[in-house]
Amino acid sequence: MSMNSFGHLFRVTTWGESHGPALGATVDGCPPGVTIDAEVIQHWLDKRKPGQNKYTTQRREPDQVKILSGVFEGQTTGTPVQLMIENTDQRSKDYGDIMEKFRPGHADITYWQKYGIRDYRGGGRSSARETASRVAAGGLAREAIRQIAPNVQINGYMTQIGPHKIDRTNFDWSQIEQNPFWTPDATAAEDWAAYLDGLRKSGNSVGAVVEVVARGVPAGIGAPVYAKLDTDLAAAMMSINAVKGVEIGEGMAAAELTGEANADEIFMGQNGPQYSSNHAGGILGGISTGQDIVVRFAVKPTSSILTTRKTITKSGEETEIITKGRHDPCVGIRAVPVGEAMMACVILDHLLLHRGQIGENRGHIG
Amino acid sequence: MSMNSFGHLFRVTTWGESHGPALGATVDGCPPGVTIDAEVIQHWLDKRKPGQNKYTTQRREPDQVKILSGVFEGQTTGTPVQLMIENTDQRSKDYGDIMEKFRPGHADITYWQKYGIRDYRGGGRSSARETASRVAAGGLAREAIRQIAPNVQINGYMTQIGPHKIDRTNFDWSQIEQNPFWTPDATAAEDWAAYLDGLRKSGNSVGAVVEVVARGVPAGIGAPVYAKLDTDLAAAMMSINAVKGVEIGEGMAAAELTGEANADEIFMGQNGPQYSSNHAGGILGGISTGQDIVVRFAVKPTSSILTTRKTITKSGEETEIITKGRHDPCVGIRAVPVGEAMMACVILDHLLLHRGQIGENRGHIG
Amino acid sequence: MSMNSFGHLFRVTTWGESHGPALGATVDGCPPGVTIDAEVIQHWLDKRKPGQNKYTTQRREPDQVKILSGVFEGQTTGTPVQLMIENTDQRSKDYGDIMEKFRPGHADITYWQKYGIRDYRGGGRSSARETASRVAAGGLAREAIRQIAPNVQINGYMTQIGPHKIDRTNFDWSQIEQNPFWTPDATAAEDWAAYLDGLRKSGNSVGAVVEVVARGVPAGIGAPVYAKLDTDLAAAMMSINAVKGVEIGEGMAAAELTGEANADEIFMGQNGPQYSSNHAGGILGGISTGQDIVVRFAVKPTSSILTTRKTITKSGEETEIITKGRHDPCVGIRAVPVGEAMMACVILDHLLLHRGQIGENRGHIG
Amino acid sequence: MSMNSFGHLFRVTTWGESHGPALGATVDGCPPGVTIDAEVIQHWLDKRKPGQNKYTTQRREPDQVKILSGVFEGQTTGTPVQLMIENTDQRSKDYGDIMEKFRPGHADITYWQKYGIRDYRGGGRSSARETASRVAAGGLAREAIRQIAPNVQINGYMTQIGPHKIDRTNFDWSQIEQNPFWTPDATAAEDWAAYLDGLRKSGNSVGAVVEVVARGVPAGIGAPVYAKLDTDLAAAMMSINAVKGVEIGEGMAAAELTGEANADEIFMGQNGPQYSSNHAGGILGGISTGQDIVVRFAVKPTSSILTTRKTITKSGEETEIITKGRHDPCVGIRAVPVGEAMMACVILDHLLLHRGQIGENRGHIG
Repeated sequence: MSMNSFGHLFRVTTWGESHGPALGATVDGCPPGVTIDAEVIQHWLDKRKPGQNKYTTQRREPDQVKILSGVFEGQTTGTPVQLMIENTDQRSKDYGDIMEKFRPGHADITYWQKYGIRDYRGGGRSSARETASRVAAGGLAREAIRQIAPNVQINGYMTQIGPHKIDRTNFDWSQIEQNPFWTPDATAAEDWAAYLDGLRKSGNSVGAVVEVVARGVPAGIGAPVYAKLDTDLAAAMMSINAVKGVEIGEGMAAAELTGEANADEIFMGQNGPQYSSNHAGGILGGISTGQDIVVRFAVKPTSSILTTRKTITKSGEETEIITKGRHDPCVGIRAVPVGEAMMACVILDHLLLHRGQIGENRGHIG
Repeated sequence: MSMNSFGHLFRVTTWGESHGPALGATVDGCPPGVTIDAEVIQHWLDKRKPGQNKYTTQRREPDQVKILSGVFEGQTTGTPVQLMIENTDQRSKDYGDIMEKFRPGHADITYWQKYGIRDYRGGGRSSARETASRVAAGGLAREAIRQIAPNVQINGYMTQIGPHKIDRTNFDWSQIEQNPFWTPDATAAEDWAAYLDGLRKSGNSVGAVVEVVARGVPAGIGAPVYAKLDTDLAAAMMSINAVKGVEIGEGMAAAELTGEANADEIFMGQNGPQYSSNHAGGILGGISTGQDIVVRFAVKPTSSILTTRKTITKSGEETEIITKGRHDPCVGIRAVPVGEAMMACVILDHLLLHRGQIGENRGHIG
Repeated sequence: MSMNSFGHLFRVTTWGESHGPALGATVDGCPPGVTIDAEVIQHWLDKRKPGQNKYTTQRREPDQVKILSGVFEGQTTGTPVQLMIENTDQRSKDYGDIMEKFRPGHADITYWQKYGIRDYRGGGRSSARETASRVAAGGLAREAIRQIAPNVQINGYMTQIGPHKIDRTNFDWSQIEQNPFWTPDATAAEDWAAYLDGLRKSGNSVGAVVEVVARGVPAGIGAPVYAKLDTDLAAAMMSINAVKGVEIGEGMAAAELTGEANADEIFMGQNGPQYSSNHAGGILGGISTGQDIVVRFAVKPTSSILTTRKTITKSGEETEIITKGRHDPCVGIRAVPVGEAMMACVILDHLLLHRGQIGENRGHIG
Repeated sequence: MSMNSFGHLFRVTTWGESHGPALGATVDGCPPGVTIDAEVIQHWLDKRKPGQNKYTTQRREPDQVKILSGVFEGQTTGTPVQLMIENTDQRSKDYGDIMEKFRPGHADITYWQKYGIRDYRGGGRSSARETASRVAAGGLAREAIRQIAPNVQINGYMTQIGPHKIDRTNFDWSQIEQNPFWTPDATAAEDWAAYLDGLRKSGNSVGAVVEVVARGVPAGIGAPVYAKLDTDLAAAMMSINAVKGVEIGEGMAAAELTGEANADEIFMGQNGPQYSSNHAGGILGGISTGQDIVVRFAVKPTSSILTTRKTITKSGEETEIITKGRHDPCVGIRAVPVGEAMMACVILDHLLLHRGQIGENRGHIG
């Protein structure tokens, strides 16, 4: 019933605030014998780290992860792994204005309404900084997956910034690491750069869509009815800050299709069933089909902008606010490694669950 | 860790298959003292019941709910409430063909791949019939909410069938109960009737979008970070059969907005904060704002259509299948009361959780 | 966080009251492919059934179990198994006196103080009748264990009634089924018969100690720190009605031993480690050693006796009460099959968990 | 389903090994607004700290707790509280011998059999050092209880060391803090000192019994059937290292009583029901009666003794072992503050749960 945890057998509890001494992830249920060290996890944190280019917040945090438990002589022992990241750049003076005023579109007002107390330095617990903990846990999950299901590959990328979508005919996996937006469409990357420059200068922000794909996931993992693979992915992605929509496969567009168009016909390939298409996003009845698992989510624009917005104070007076400080014109960019981390955690969790439920994949075809 | 349960304090476990003796919901955590009888729950089941008009499956099930426990002299006692619905119309002969063949777009193949055993009569556990259990539980949740937060009103309705969306300027709450699609747009209802007639005759099906709104939810309920109100709603809706996308407030369209456009500005009303708009869908940082909570989900078209589709058998031979029998041209229609039920369960659960976490709403404004 | 459920992967939710229409167990997480039918489960229910001899309550319930879901063509499918037992002998008139008065030693007063509403027919939810649901679930667990770990044998028996303990030198497994007390000491059985006759005639009752042993459990199952095998067993047994103490291995007597006396020395046998003794009760650090797992629990005497006891009414008036009706002079006797059922559920749960956590037993000795 | 967590709404996950960089507790669900700082928690850690007198291990750890999250300006914010204790005295050389040999009575062998990998420095995760995390969490729980139910008082004390029990007629609350054994019987304290001196010199160890009492707990908290107050207490205490038995109220001795002797008769006092006795230990049907809640548990003697014991190595060779190093002649002594901490966590958890389930205490008497 813990509200800061996710996962069933691979269970991650994140803790920490944006301007406290540290934040981290308590990871329970990692299988023993996974080779891991801080550097492997650091790789993924560096990918998410702010201040790397002009399109992301200029807050500079080294985001150095420390492993405090659960690893001995370079291997997980099966006991809880504590991953800690100390906060160093806590310049909390920047945030003085939000002590009394609620920022529109932020959780300031609802945290206050719920708790009657609030850590007003930065976003406190609701800051996107919390996602660093997820990325650390995801780094560990990736290594565990590598051991249990070595064919699995997890990649996230951007498919849309503001009104500008990628052209799917340009899709090139190798481009993803070549541009600051982790997009597989090199042309889109150029257009977005210009578009975001303009936004940044005007102090405005914009939303985005991130897609995460898991390839090589074996058929048969997932668990009906309320821990379906898609249910858990929807929850995982929706729990990321600023996410307002989640889609599996065809997503919202499935509403527009006929049954005839939407059916993924089945053929027999050399290694088992093959499908004519993947409208389902690799999941049927909450269970993996063996196809690519495809999740997409929309990230709203950050409300921290240089335009004056109307708001109220804690004492109920109407006023205005401009959010200065170090912020992202498109927070969606940094959500890419976060989405990957969540995918990794969910996939690992269901690989473990399946083993517990079934032992091995029992249903054979052909 | 139960995979057929949802909720934290108000916890629903559904059980049963489409063609077994019965199905139902074991509801644990319902507060004591809620006035309830089978008829109150029956009202909501009747709303979902198949065979009511030509747009839904002609399977006829009385869907009579029995309360087997947890209620004494017309009131809940605080102990588990068992809600059972016996299956009567089990004509399983209709389904003989799917013993060996996998229906494209159905969970037949993945259940087989996971479990190595499958109840092939109808959809078994993956049948939409499972949602009757949810509707029964939701009926109980509504009564409990009425006692705890009497201002809450929960309504679902259709906003899209295939490519045809409602016109929001026609939105009229009073229309919802006046047409077989539960849509607030009377004009759309007429158009859809004609459209679905054509589809039905051709043996095809189509997807849909359902929107569910909870009005009157007090500010401050929800729980960061992994039991956010929107996270739980996303999971709840995505767990419904055939759902492929979930949106909160602005949803996927949030990607296209700038921060300036997306900000819901805050004013001071007579009873607390008021907002200039509701892009957030009533939820900030996972916690309710007091505005309408707005969730939308897309239901894919059923794959049970009269067009021949390619598939394989359990022994791996390629073949074809036509799904005869009693099916829905637009399963999305019957998803409306299901979405309402899930909303009711999530809202009640978070009302109870909030009470446990906080005692009462502590943060005061003004 | 359901409060009427236990288990992690094999999760049992019991429901129902002593005098409602039915009671049962919703069993989620049973592996697929377990051969089962109602008769197999009935065998264990019959063992617990009241009214079988003069030492147990004369309430007569056929306690016929029905399987409503999760089983198809004689095998579990991996979906929830609903086990229902209808109540037939509900003679609730017998219980009229307890509508207003609280029975000392019963949960009447605390249920009232908690819920403000109470099903006063019999014990309602707190009646020992709830344990029928556990026995049904345990019957299913036994069959699943038979498939996963066929060497496991689970047996419960009585070691003490009132002040009269068995003589361990008389211990004979084959005696357990030969007497109405399920005791391995034939001499004790005779003495107890006479002792209980006297008690029954005087309208008094007495406590008892039950021991449950699981033989053949593989080494290495269990899970530190808060789902230790002994922790889960302690919880399972303490949750049974009227249980006031739980011991593992040496139990409370471990307090009197020195470290030298308490150490179970380790040798190398043909099939792995062997121990000189089993003070630990087969569990070290919460994980099984491969020795017999030994749990013991004390059942208090039922407070339903023919002696007048002082009590109060709901309106706070002091009064007296005699509990007439059909009751057990030694409820501990019927706790034997219940203890076995709980052991079966816990062992199965940990077998599944281990598989999920580790895959297979990884540590090799020798 | 995390295996290193306990509690429902107040949920504690402990992490860390005896000789890793740090250990701690991730506490989720602490109510907001609790006044707390590291010193308050340090008070309880100091009580448990080793090396304080000659009756406990001479390992010297400052056990300084740091609060890394969840507290802002001296108050809890409702977000996870991370409590970290850095290990400083990690002299792992002392433990070299146990790399290859399994210590009888320790979890060395079962951890190896489960995980196939083991942190052999000290006890690793199975070390009693893990209980420092519990004491830290318990310190926080106490402060939260003080706010929610200010009349609650929690005290633990020893009632038995080896064969030597306290004389209940000497019971004096004020003595508890006056002797190194936290015993309310001053005479026993003197006898035990002499007894333990002898044991320590001979390199032997002995078991003990600890009793923990919670006074002032309101009637009506607890939750049938599997989260009964006594069930949760049994699990909490049994999860403590080396505990082999748990008793509520009369405990195992309840087996010897008749129903007449065991009944706690009820009278009407000025502030509600009063009882003639407390055989039930303050709990009926899993719910508190308002009387003292009384739990007792037996701690086995540590197996780390100076006597040679027979054992085997990882490669299966028979050998002998003497455990040198810094150990406790009676680990039970240091279990007193641990038992108190577990009691505090369980009571707080159920106070919060009750609020979530019921809102307020609803049943009125008189």
